[in-house]
Amino acid sequence: MLRTHTCGELRIADANKQVTLTGWVQRLRDKGSVLWVDLRDRYGITQLIFEEGKTDAALLQSARTLGREFVVQVSGTVVERLSKNDKIATGEIELKVSTLNILNAAKLPPFTIEDDTDGGDELRMKYRYLDLRRNVVRESLQLRHKVAQQTRQYLDTQNFIEVETPVLIKSTPEGARDFVVPSRVHHGEFYALPQSPQTFKQLLMVSGFDRYYQIVKCFRDEDLRADRQPEFTQIDCEMSFITQEDILNTFEGLIRHLFKNVKGIDLPSVPRMFYDDAMKLYGSDKPDTRFDMKFAELTELTRGKNFPVFDAAELVVGIAATGCAEYTRKQIDELTEFVKRPQIGAKGLVYVQYKADGTFKSSVDKFYSADDLKAWAEKANAKPGDLILILAGETHTTRKQLNELRLLMGDKLGLRDKQKFSALWVVDFPLLEWNEETNRYHAMHHPFTSPKPEDIGLLDTDPGKVRANAYDMVINGTEVGGGSIRIHDKATQSLMFTHLGFSQEEAQKQFGFLMEAFEYGAPPHGGIAFGFDRLCSIFGGADSIRDFIAFPKNNAGRDVMIDSPSTISQEQLTELALEIAKVKQKS
Amino acid sequence: MLRTHTCGELRIADANKQVTLTGWVQRLRDKGSVLWVDLRDRYGITQLIFEEGKTDAALLQSARTLGREFVVQVSGTVVERLSKNDKIATGEIELKVSTLNILNAAKLPPFTIEDDTDGGDELRMKYRYLDLRRNVVRESLQLRHKVAQQTRQYLDTQNFIEVETPVLIKSTPEGARDFVVPSRVHHGEFYALPQSPQTFKQLLMVSGFDRYYQIVKCFRDEDLRADRQPEFTQIDCEMSFITQEDILNTFEGLIRHLFKNVKGIDLPSVPRMFYDDAMKLYGSDKPDTRFDMKFAELTELTRGKNFPVFDAAELVVGIAATGCAEYTRKQIDELTEFVKRPQIGAKGLVYVQYKADGTFKSSVDKFYSADDLKAWAEKANAKPGDLILILAGETHTTRKQLNELRLLMGDKLGLRDKQKFSALWVVDFPLLEWNEETNRYHAMHHPFTSPKPEDIGLLDTDPGKVRANAYDMVINGTEVGGGSIRIHDKATQSLMFTHLGFSQEEAQKQFGFLMEAFEYGAPPHGGIAFGFDRLCSIFGGADSIRDFIAFPKNNAGRDVMIDSPSTISQEQLTELALEIAKVKQKS
Repeated sequence: MLRTHTCGELRIADANKQVTLTGWVQRLRDKGSVLWVDLRDRYGITQLIFEEGKTDAALLQSARTLGREFVVQVSGTVVERLSKNDKIATGEIELKVSTLNILNAAKLPPFTIEDDTDGGDELRMKYRYLDLRRNVVRESLQLRHKVAQQTRQYLDTQNFIEVETPVLIKSTPEGARDFVVPSRVHHGEFYALPQSPQTFKQLLMVSGFDRYYQIVKCFRDEDLRADRQPEFTQIDCEMSFITQEDILNTFEGLIRHLFKNVKGIDLPSVPRMFYDDAMKLYGSDKPDTRFDMKFAELTELTRGKNFPVFDAAELVVGIAATGCAEYTRKQIDELTEFVKRPQIGAKGLVYVQYKADGTFKSSVDKFYSADDLKAWAEKANAKPGDLILILAGETHTTRKQLNELRLLMGDKLGLRDKQKFSALWVVDFPLLEWNEETNRYHAMHHPFTSPKPEDIGLLDTDPGKVRANAYDMVINGTEVGGGSIRIHDKATQSLMFTHLGFSQEEAQKQFGFLMEAFEYGAPPHGGIAFGFDRLCSIFGGADSIRDFIAFPKNNAGRDVMIDSPSTISQEQLTELALEIAKVKQKS
Repeated sequence: MLRTHTCGELRIADANKQVTLTGWVQRLRDKGSVLWVDLRDRYGITQLIFEEGKTDAALLQSARTLGREFVVQVSGTVVERLSKNDKIATGEIELKVSTLNILNAAKLPPFTIEDDTDGGDELRMKYRYLDLRRNVVRESLQLRHKVAQQTRQYLDTQNFIEVETPVLIKSTPEGARDFVVPSRVHHGEFYALPQSPQTFKQLLMVSGFDRYYQIVKCFRDEDLRADRQPEFTQIDCEMSFITQEDILNTFEGLIRHLFKNVKGIDLPSVPRMFYDDAMKLYGSDKPDTRFDMKFAELTELTRGKNFPVFDAAELVVGIAATGCAEYTRKQIDELTEFVKRPQIGAKGLVYVQYKADGTFKSSVDKFYSADDLKAWAEKANAKPGDLILILAGETHTTRKQLNELRLLMGDKLGLRDKQKFSALWVVDFPLLEWNEETNRYHAMHHPFTSPKPEDIGLLDTDPGKVRANAYDMVINGTEVGGGSIRIHDKATQSLMFTHLGFSQEEAQKQFGFLMEAFEYGAPPHGGIAFGFDRLCSIFGGADSIRDFIAFPKNNAGRDVMIDSPSTISQEQLTELALEIAKVKQKS
C-alpha cells in the first residue's frame, strides 16, 4: 500500500510514530509561519502541519503549491496537537510532514466538495464523481451497502438462496413499458430487460428452490416522474408452501432486523390494515401512520340541513388538526387554495374551529347549529383547540383529496419526523382495477396474483370487488414493498388472463411456459419485492432516492456524466438490421 | 407454513411425533400390501408409508393415484424404519401417513428427474424448471450462492464497499460488441449494456471510495462459442493507493478464503509466473499447473544434423510424458493425428521413446545418435520409461500447438483431476497485441491498463514489447480472473488512445468524461475482475458453466424456455422510432 494508515486512523497513542498517509487535500490554512493541510480519504481527515523554519524549505515550498483536491502521499511523524479538534476522530493529533509526494494535481472543482455544496443538481450529476466525494453522498452509499449486507444476512439465516435470474428476457404486454434489446443474430427479434424477475422466481418455486431471494436490477421504460429511475433495484423474494401469514411474518422480521442492525432501532411489531380501511381512514393505500388524524365520515351527520354541497355529496369526510383552532383567515385560505390546486382538485374546503372555550366557528354556521358541529367534533375525535377540515364529493376522489390535506397538516404540525419510523402492512388489495383508457380491468398487482378463494365467484359478476391475497408494506406513508400469494394452477391462471382481456393465443405466446410449468407440479407459493433504492432513502431519512444511487439518471432518463443515451455507428445499426424512422412518430 | 418440518429434517429422535410434510413425489413402490412413497423437497427425501389394512382405505386409494412429481401435503406419525437407508439423512425413519392432501397434480415430466437424466440438452433447457429439480443442478446453484456469500464476507472484512453501477450505459467502440437499448425518449439514440463496469469503478476510485466491489451482470454480444453466455457475472473489484503487489495479495487472499470456506481446502500460497515464462514453459498464458511436463527447448541441440525440419524451424520444443515409452505405433499415430488437426495445425510430431533399459527409439533415428537423444532427454528432464514428444516451427505457433498436446497428455495420464486445484498468477502481460484484421494494435487487457513505467519509451519504437501492469489468475489451466493497474493521468490515457488508433475526437466523445475526471485528482488505482460463472464451475469440478447459471441461454443466444428473443409489436417499434431493415445485411 502507498500508505501505512488511513486518514481516519491515527490517535494520540500513535504519537511519535513514523507514518505515511495518502488522500485528497480538503483545505489549506496558511498562517505564514505555519501551513496546515487537511488530508481526506474515505475513512476520515488528518491534519498535516508544515512549519516555517522547522520544515525543510523546499518541502514547505512544494506544500504551498497544493490546491484543493490534489492527491498526495505524505510521510512524517505523528505529534500531539496543540488545539484539539473534538469533532473528528483524529482531532488529538497532527502529522509533522517530512516528505510530500504529489500523486496527482487537481483542477479547481466546479463546485465545493463540502457537505453543503454550492453545486446545482445538473452540475453535481455531470461531475458525479466529484459529488460522490462529499461525505453526505458517500455515507448514503455506505448506508446502502449496509442495508444490502444486513438483508442478505437475515435472508441467509432464513434459508433463502440467492439465485441470479436473466437480464435478457422477453417483452410482455402487461405492466409498464419494457426496454428492449435488438438481437444481432435473430434479426427483427428483441430481448427485453426485466421489470421484475416475477416469472423466473415463480419457476424457481416450481423447481423446488423453496426460498429464493435476489437483490436485483429491474427496468421500466416509463415517463419519468421526479424520483423515478429507469433502472432500479429490488429485494426480490419468493417462498413455497406458505400462507400469506408466513410471508408477512418473515418479512416483518426482515424489516425489524434492518431497523435494529442498520439504525439501532427496535421497531415494534408491524400492524396490519385492510386496504378498505386504509382508504376509509386515510384515503390512501399507503397511509403515513407516524401520526393519527384519522378520517371521520360525517355524511349522515351533515344530511338534511339544507347545505346543498353536503346534501349532494356521496361522502362528507373530515379530519381534526390538533391545536389549529386559532388558524387565521389567511392560513385557512391557504389550505383552501391547496385543496383546490388542479392536481388535487377539490371544489372547496369547509372548516370548523373548535375554540378553546368550547364554542364553534365554521364556514357553514349558516346551515349548522353548535350542536351539529359538536356532533361532528365528537365523530372526528376533536378537542377544544382543534381545527376540523372537511371535504365533500364522490367517495374515492374526496378521500384522496383529504389524504393530501392530512399529509400537509402532518407536515405543518411537525408530525412527519424523518427520524421517526412507522411501518404498516396493508392487506387484501383488490385483484383488479378498472382502466378508463383501455376500457378493461388491469391487474392491480400483476396477473399472477391469486384472488381470495372465497371471492373467485365474483370474478364474473363483480370483478372490481374481488380481493387478492396481496399486501404492501408501508413505512412513513411510502410503499416500500409489495407482494402476493400467486396463482399456482393453470386453470386459474388461464381464467385470470381471460379476465385481463388476453386472447388464448396471446396468453399462450407470452406466458405459455409458465402455464405449462404449472402442469408439472407447482407448489403453493408467494412472495414480495422491496424497492431497495426507496428503502435505503427512508433509512437515510431522505426525500429523494437520488443520492442512494451511485450514478443516477436525470428526469429525462439521461446520464449527463457519460452523455448517454447516444448515437451508435451505422455499422452497429446495420449489424442489427435496424433503421431509424425518418419521421418521428407520435409516442 | 403448510409443513411442520422439511423432508430432510426428521430423525429417529422424532419418532412418534405428529408432523406435516410437503414436497414432490420422487418415487412410488407399490408392493400390494405396502405402498412406499419418497417425498422430496430442497432439503432432502423422506419415505412415506401406506399399509393395506392399517391405512384408511380411502387414503390408500388416494395415495395410489399419485404420480411422479405430484405436489402433496401429508400428515402422520414418525416411525422407526424396519430397513434403514444409510444413504439419506432421514433413513432411520418413515412417515406413517394419516392424511394426504394433493396440492397439485403433475403431468409425466418429459425426462426423469434423477441425478442421471435421460433428457438431452435442448429438452432440459426448454424445461429448465424441471431440470433445476435435479439434485446435481440445484446443488450447483447452491454452491454458487455459497461462493457469492463467502466472496462478500471476505471483501467486507477487507473494507470493500459494494456499489451498484448502472446497466444502461453508453456504447463504446473498443472491446467486444455491445448490446444496445434504443431510447424511446431520445429517438435515434441508444443505451448500451456494460461489458464490465470498468469506467464506473475507476470513477469510484476518483471519488475516493478506496475499495469497491460488485458481483455484477455483464454483457457481450459476441458470436457464442460453446460455454460462453451473452450475459455473465463478474466479481468486479478496484482499489486505490496500491501497487500490483497489494492487489495480488488481496485477491490471493480471496481465492484462498473461498477454497477454505467453500471447499474446505487449504490452498497453498499462489505462485507467480511472468507471461513470457508461461509462454516459454507451457505455450499458454493460462498454464495448467496441476502437472509439471514443462516445455524443453531443443532448438540448439537439434541443429546441424541434416534433419531439415528441425534445421529450418525457429523453435524445436518438446515435453516428456512420464511412463509412456512403450506407447504403441497406433497410440503415437493418434497423437500425430491430434496435432495435425486443422484447429491445432502442426505439420507432424517427432517422438523419442526413452526405454526402461536406457536405450532410445525415435522417429528421427536416421538423423540423431543415441547421445543426441540422451542430451534431449536430459534437457526435457525425461527418465527411462518416458516418451518425449517434439514439435517444431515458428515459435509462437509451435508453443501453442505443444500446449494442446501437453494438455492431452495430462488428460491421458490422469494428471488433471478436477478435485485437485492449482492456482497461479501470470504477470507482466504485454500491453498491446497486433490485430491482423484491423491492422493496428489493440489493448490486450483494455485501454485503461497502465504500461510499466520503464517500458513507456518503447511505445513509439516497439509497441509490442511494452509490458503492462496486468495480471491474470489461473486455476487448473483456466483464466478465472484478470486485472491491471490503471492509468490515472490524462496525458498517459490520451497517449494510449492515440496508440490504439483513436482520433482526438473519438477519444473525447467516448471517454472524455474519464479523462476529465483524471484532471480533478485521481488516485493511483487498480483492480481485478473474476469470472464468477467460471469460478463456480471450477469449484464444482465441472467443465461447463451451464449448470451454474439458473437460466442459461443456448449457443445461439436463445432462451428456449421462454422463447426469447422474440418479435415485439409494431406499436413498440413505432414508439422507439425503429424500423426493421427489409433486406438482411451482411453482419
